[in-house]
Amino acid sequence: MDPTVDQFRACPVGILTTDYYDNVGTFIDEASEAGHDFVATPMAHPTFRRVLHEDKKEKNKAAVDLWRDGPVFDRQDLILQSAACSDIVVGMLAEWLQLDSQDEDIRVNSELALKQELAWASHLGLLSVIFPKLPKGNLSNTARAINHAVGSLSFTQLWTHVLINEPDDEGVENGPWKQWNKLRVLCEQNTKIHVALELTQDLPSDDILDVWMAEPVKALIVPAEVFIPNTKGFPVLPKRHQEFVKKVMDKLRPNILVTVPPTQLHASATPSSYQEYIRHLNRNLPELDAVNQFATGYQDYLQAPLQPLMDNLDNSTYETFEKDPIKYQQYEEAVYRALLDRTEPDSNVTTVIMVVGAGRGPLVDCCLRASTKAERKVHIYAVEKNPNAYVTLQNKKENEWLDKVELVFADMRRWKPSKKCDILVSELLGSFGDNELSPECLDGAQKFLKDDGISIPANYTSFAAPLASTKLYNEVAAYKDLEHFETPYVVMFQQICELNPSQPLWTFAHPNHTHPTTDDHDPINNLHNIRYSQVKFAAVEKSMTMHGIAGYFESVLYKDVTISIHPETHSPGMFSWFPIFFPIRNPVQVPQGAHVTLDFWRQTDKKKIWYEWAATVTKDGQDIAITPIHNVGGRSYWVGL
Amino acid sequence: MDPTVDQFRACPVGILTTDYYDNVGTFIDEASEAGHDFVATPMAHPTFRRVLHEDKKEKNKAAVDLWRDGPVFDRQDLILQSAACSDIVVGMLAEWLQLDSQDEDIRVNSELALKQELAWASHLGLLSVIFPKLPKGNLSNTARAINHAVGSLSFTQLWTHVLINEPDDEGVENGPWKQWNKLRVLCEQNTKIHVALELTQDLPSDDILDVWMAEPVKALIVPAEVFIPNTKGFPVLPKRHQEFVKKVMDKLRPNILVTVPPTQLHASATPSSYQEYIRHLNRNLPELDAVNQFATGYQDYLQAPLQPLMDNLDNSTYETFEKDPIKYQQYEEAVYRALLDRTEPDSNVTTVIMVVGAGRGPLVDCCLRASTKAERKVHIYAVEKNPNAYVTLQNKKENEWLDKVELVFADMRRWKPSKKCDILVSELLGSFGDNELSPECLDGAQKFLKDDGISIPANYTSFAAPLASTKLYNEVAAYKDLEHFETPYVVMFQQICELNPSQPLWTFAHPNHTHPTTDDHDPINNLHNIRYSQVKFAAVEKSMTMHGIAGYFESVLYKDVTISIHPETHSPGMFSWFPIFFPIRNPVQVPQGAHVTLDFWRQTDKKKIWYEWAATVTKDGQDIAITPIHNVGGRSYWVGL
Repeated sequence: MDPTVDQFRACPVGILTTDYYDNVGTFIDEASEAGHDFVATPMAHPTFRRVLHEDKKEKNKAAVDLWRDGPVFDRQDLILQSAACSDIVVGMLAEWLQLDSQDEDIRVNSELALKQELAWASHLGLLSVIFPKLPKGNLSNTARAINHAVGSLSFTQLWTHVLINEPDDEGVENGPWKQWNKLRVLCEQNTKIHVALELTQDLPSDDILDVWMAEPVKALIVPAEVFIPNTKGFPVLPKRHQEFVKKVMDKLRPNILVTVPPTQLHASATPSSYQEYIRHLNRNLPELDAVNQFATGYQDYLQAPLQPLMDNLDNSTYETFEKDPIKYQQYEEAVYRALLDRTEPDSNVTTVIMVVGAGRGPLVDCCLRASTKAERKVHIYAVEKNPNAYVTLQNKKENEWLDKVELVFADMRRWKPSKKCDILVSELLGSFGDNELSPECLDGAQKFLKDDGISIPANYTSFAAPLASTKLYNEVAAYKDLEHFETPYVVMFQQICELNPSQPLWTFAHPNHTHPTTDDHDPINNLHNIRYSQVKFAAVEKSMTMHGIAGYFESVLYKDVTISIHPETHSPGMFSWFPIFFPIRNPVQVPQGAHVTLDFWRQTDKKKIWYEWAATVTKDGQDIAITPIHNVGGRSYWVGL
Repeated sequence: MDPTVDQFRACPVGILTTDYYDNVGTFIDEASEAGHDFVATPMAHPTFRRVLHEDKKEKNKAAVDLWRDGPVFDRQDLILQSAACSDIVVGMLAEWLQLDSQDEDIRVNSELALKQELAWASHLGLLSVIFPKLPKGNLSNTARAINHAVGSLSFTQLWTHVLINEPDDEGVENGPWKQWNKLRVLCEQNTKIHVALELTQDLPSDDILDVWMAEPVKALIVPAEVFIPNTKGFPVLPKRHQEFVKKVMDKLRPNILVTVPPTQLHASATPSSYQEYIRHLNRNLPELDAVNQFATGYQDYLQAPLQPLMDNLDNSTYETFEKDPIKYQQYEEAVYRALLDRTEPDSNVTTVIMVVGAGRGPLVDCCLRASTKAERKVHIYAVEKNPNAYVTLQNKKENEWLDKVELVFADMRRWKPSKKCDILVSELLGSFGDNELSPECLDGAQKFLKDDGISIPANYTSFAAPLASTKLYNEVAAYKDLEHFETPYVVMFQQICELNPSQPLWTFAHPNHTHPTTDDHDPINNLHNIRYSQVKFAAVEKSMTMHGIAGYFESVLYKDVTISIHPETHSPGMFSWFPIFFPIRNPVQVPQGAHVTLDFWRQTDKKKIWYEWAATVTKDGQDIAITPIHNVGGRSYWVGL
């Protein structure tokens, strides 16, 4: 990954023609002259359509049988006759293919013609071809024929042409998505099959637009007809179209296609006006926020969650996370507020703070700054188990902290301090809150804390929501094994759509007075850190194919000082945590009006903790889809204690 | 397999007690004395129930923590205290387990108690334990706990107790099945989890009863209360119960459990009356018909379909199929009728018959018998490509047929006869009709036939129906690969349930005058033998988990002389073909009120034919489940030309 390149978010802009050029070279030259990066043109001439029917004409029988036996183009049937410019050409397959015709001969001939065109595209080395708009009703045979045909393509991709709004007879708004969805599920989510999404003058509701963010939209077609003239007669896009185009540019980085306008559609338009406008929008995307700048190049990239208890973090990981501008600010504020509450002004009392999991010391710095600001005396213990980080702590003590800070090299679960503290500060949180074993570590550490002491954080809550993402599903499916479908991933979401805002699953609060602190260094068991939650989501406005579950956390550090990666309450600019993604083994359909129930467990035994999860889709009280429980007994994924 | 043993269809009969015996040995002895094969008894005493709550009593805290850390039985809590008789004991798990309680402590303690009881059952070497009735609402945590717990059992199986009729508040009749279904899908159809199905006084509708035929019912509980007294005061079962028990005995071979009756429930009953009655039913199952006698030992056993074109059949295969009492009778009748229609009585004309794929000659015999009966002169050509069968043909010609029959050693697709025939007789049919390439073979052979000649068979039609079968699904899933989920199997169905009667997909008719007969020995292409069909089924009375598709054929030999393996029209006694089973990769839910659409393709290229298939479930016009298209391009299964 080269993050800097992607930061520009530049989308190639091409031009699409539906005319049939006798000399397509002229069109390509003119398009290029007008500043387009590529062109899309029909591959074959309408005369080629004769193959649909001609086998019924007896006179031509022999020739047809010959064609059916080994399809070959008549040179005059082709618009794209050679590989010249093939690097900047997208081929459009014949509009008249009728793969779901009731007429068997038309079906069979359409499939032969499809294969013939794809073979030609592949021979020319075209990078992409556009498959014409899907039929409105049955498309099973279309799916089978496409799925079979793309199997023989080595690098040519297929873009399925979809109109974003094509209300069906019953006024269902998401008809085009449903047809696309059915196609790609029938085709086992084949990664060679993408979408060329065409904007229409009327856009569907925002909910329906959102669903496309989870789809492999490789091209966005913005026809000249959806542009409106500005006061000077130049073509511009209406507001909602602008917003949507920008969102798609930002999230999906598609190729963008404008079309050849009818004469005088916009008074002042030149052949380059449309592409120039698109590039203008592209250059003026909203600035990336801190989180997205940090994440550039890592969007939708699956990472295994950290195992900080079993593995020691390396220096660069510390380095990266210490740069978070928000997290330490919030910790400092929390400690500051706790100090104010804990000790009277001008008191001579020294407040004892223990920072457990001190790493290279940023939380110690927070505490020292808070102490200065609050004008309270503190004595700080910095407890760290990583021998490498401990060297940095020694340097800091020697050079900065001096005797305000006492260093302890120990695992907080095992250390036996000689005195107890007033404030216990830790940052042991993972993307799902408890997934880096903060509960277990603090169970061990809370014996350092006075009975009326304060834990920062005070609590943390895990959140989950049903998620669609063709990209993430295919990333996991590529491993072709069960283990990867039963493992959660830390991932910066980009090409996704959530069914609804996420809901809270469970909370851990510290100190945990309901569970006795044991003096043994091994607690008897960890059953009090088991959690189970069931949450239910209603598919009110959307249908979706659910590919997995999005996970987040929120944490109360102290009173109303919080940190959150939950989208609705995300701490602005805090980049230390990406969300977490729990896949499901087989995508399930969530039709509009259905409910999704998620079951989530945090399980534990003496050596590890793990999650199990399952989803059930119900409609009108009936189960319409049930997934198996994933990761039974932690068989595929666990975090070591 | 030892087919003779299974032909008796004997089911073990045991007795179930819900009482808690201080000395269970007495109960076991008495049960054995009264003629029972095994007993089912609670494993633990109700006192054990205290573990659900006692951790909340502070005084007992330490003991409880100890129990939670390493659960151990107090000897007095156990009914089954030793492994004595463990080979004839089924253990019943505590009724009070509340794995889906709202109370977290009760949930956690229930799971510990479950694991503890299962570990004890495993230690004792019990073959089976009965899990108590499922909760009516949420059962996710029950599923997770069971699924996890049975993972540690080596050979002990779990039977889930299900009442066959337990109308819920909304009067839904199949509530118990739905709960069981949800459990087993959440548990990924774990093969250690079975059903102990208990009959109730009111039985649900026949449709609901049918659904259980597809489930792993390992025990059938027939409580004393469902027996009625006959005129002499002895317990007998009402008619519908009798029928159902016999059907279950026949199809599922379960263990049967009667229960200890309340005193004087049936005036003349002795401790052995109930089991004696059950054994009486068991001994008086309807006689196996010819097909089932033939199939004994092969029920639900997956076989790869024959490839008679690529492979030569062996002698025993011929031997087996030649014993079919019906098939040859129908062929003889068809040839007889054709001869009567073809030639005037007392005519001197010799009718030329060609038997293509003559094998060891049974169809030649049919033709000769038909000729005698019809009093028509015939001359028969017997064409066979299998050099080994051809030796038998030579023997038969030498010893029986003499010059009435002329032998031809050739592949019918290549042979060039010197004259044409009046009647072309073939039997090249597979379980799905065309799956042994009859269409392609007869395409080659029809050039032997006069323009007005007769083909026997005249046509054949393939049928399909959505099917539930836990057994067949698990057989296929055991291979743990995609190939086996994309391969059809020839299988004698037993533990299955069809959603609806099967529907016709497509027909091949011979001779095929619409397609030209070519003189080349290789036809130009085989596109005219491509087929595609879409059929739709309504789930009117049933919900089911669909595991695959049942396939059958019907064939018109001549006019109204037919053969069929389609259940509704099955030729009585004909055993030459078992049905065919097309699996699907992931079982899909078909709720009541939904529709299942099946897409089926017969595809071909120059070297092979294959099938592709997909299923879509819709409800209220929305897609609620879509399978991928199976066997794309014949990647997993094909029949060689």
